[in-house]
Amino acid sequence: MSTWTLTNLDLVEACDDFPYHHDTRGLYTLFLPNDDRPHGYMLPQIVQQMPWSAEFAVNHENRTVQLQVSAECPDLSKACNHAFAAVINKAIDGDIFPTLHKKHSEMFKIVGSAYPVQCERFASHLFGITARGAHLTVYITTDTGMRIWVPRRAQSMFTYPNKLDTTVAGGVPAHQTPFENIVQEADEEASLSAELIKRSVKAAGVLTYIGHSKQGLIVPDQVFVYDLEVGPDIVPVPRDGEVKEFNLMSVAEVKTALAQGEFKPNSAVVMLDFFIRHGIITAENEKNYVEINLHVLVFLFNQRPVTVIYKICH
Amino acid sequence: MSTWTLTNLDLVEACDDFPYHHDTRGLYTLFLPNDDRPHGYMLPQIVQQMPWSAEFAVNHENRTVQLQVSAECPDLSKACNHAFAAVINKAIDGDIFPTLHKKHSEMFKIVGSAYPVQCERFASHLFGITARGAHLTVYITTDTGMRIWVPRRAQSMFTYPNKLDTTVAGGVPAHQTPFENIVQEADEEASLSAELIKRSVKAAGVLTYIGHSKQGLIVPDQVFVYDLEVGPDIVPVPRDGEVKEFNLMSVAEVKTALAQGEFKPNSAVVMLDFFIRHGIITAENEKNYVEINLHVLVFLFNQRPVTVIYKICH
Repeated sequence: MSTWTLTNLDLVEACDDFPYHHDTRGLYTLFLPNDDRPHGYMLPQIVQQMPWSAEFAVNHENRTVQLQVSAECPDLSKACNHAFAAVINKAIDGDIFPTLHKKHSEMFKIVGSAYPVQCERFASHLFGITARGAHLTVYITTDTGMRIWVPRRAQSMFTYPNKLDTTVAGGVPAHQTPFENIVQEADEEASLSAELIKRSVKAAGVLTYIGHSKQGLIVPDQVFVYDLEVGPDIVPVPRDGEVKEFNLMSVAEVKTALAQGEFKPNSAVVMLDFFIRHGIITAENEKNYVEINLHVLVFLFNQRPVTVIYKICH
Repeated sequence: MSTWTLTNLDLVEACDDFPYHHDTRGLYTLFLPNDDRPHGYMLPQIVQQMPWSAEFAVNHENRTVQLQVSAECPDLSKACNHAFAAVINKAIDGDIFPTLHKKHSEMFKIVGSAYPVQCERFASHLFGITARGAHLTVYITTDTGMRIWVPRRAQSMFTYPNKLDTTVAGGVPAHQTPFENIVQEADEEASLSAELIKRSVKAAGVLTYIGHSKQGLIVPDQVFVYDLEVGPDIVPVPRDGEVKEFNLMSVAEVKTALAQGEFKPNSAVVMLDFFIRHGIITAENEKNYVEINLHVLVFLFNQRPVTVIYKICH
């Protein structure tokens, strides 16, 4: 067993690792038609490699990518969706970006757009668009304290194979609300019935952060969090192959696994938020309490705090 | 009854109402010795009126107030405390600021200082220093849903007389932790025993915001939030004269009172956070869900996000 351990703040900083304090003026800002709020931040090398169509005006002086559609266009949503799809199809067909794995992925919505716009999940990272996720923590209460159902991800997963995860977790596709997604994922990943979820799940907030991929991509996320307390008779069972096994872990065991970096980074933060909401991590036992609470938040491009990041970046 | 109603986002914006989007370069930044992080933001007219001692170096070009103590000083905390006390005593004796009410108030700590420094509560607003509060929501679960114990503030209160409030709420003095403060306030304000609080209260996070007083003062707060579920046998009873009466309100009644502006502004936000954590306000029923979650957060001068507000202000 490793003797090296991570603090809770380390875990948060490993997830919310956008270079807030560095000069990020090199990034290109993505704009949609008729909307002066930024919707994504792109690396210069991605802007250079992207097989843009004529609808995307790239300005290297201002470092902007502006999607433009004909002024007579009767359906802005449709026109934007087509424009993104054409460029993404070309990028996938040409195998330009390894991160696309030459594969199509489900549609995600561009969060906060003034009219519905969507774009493929894997490609959204290239554009630096905010994605939505939904995480459900399932737990039981025993005489000796709380125990949490923790899955280990399958060896075959693209991302974070073998890591520990939130009981149920998924990306929210464009056509679903976060709750609809949790109902579906609970069934697919953990064999928990839609009836149980609809009756007993409690929404508990949303975490936001800006991740920074190994390639330097800007990956902002909104993670909608849910709790489900069950009795000992309810046991999650893997179904769709994404999960290897579920273990019922004590709070102490989860804390040890967190400190040893065994959790997928954003699932570690979901676990910390769960511990904060349930009075396990407190102002008295965690010296970075406020900072951790503050971190798990911060700026979304197209919500109110946009001006803030805008000022950092420009 | 008024027909005008506030949205949840209106309530959050009424509490977290720092002029984030405006040019705030006019503010003076307060610095402590041996610490290059800002600890407060002051209005120019306050800087002008404050009866500074020689230990405070006011620079009108950089718009900074730098507390300086002798290099040989063996105890930085003591020296800083003395320096603040001398200036504040003079301001109170001279009745320079109406907001001090010519009265001394309890000691608050300067949150995030590298060594312990404290300053009187009322005066902290003049320096734009972050204050700590603790709020406890007491509720019961019935067959017809949750009911919340809501106090009405006494008519005699300096601030927000007659407004509705969190069940138990107070400012955290320098010598207490937030939990210690809740134990004491629960007894003083609601006659809830220390034994009950210690056994059953659950810490649930910390809200942060930057308020903006009517006089334009910058009032950043950290509010540590707690929940306590009780049975119908536990009934809070006013004790110290700050509360007029407690009423057991349904969620629908609380929502109506919130929308009609009946709650003290930061207690309204504590209530919204409680509703979010308990699955009453959800992503599906509140269109500004993410924005509300994001708001209740944001920048503390001397925690990590300092650079952000620093960039806004400079």
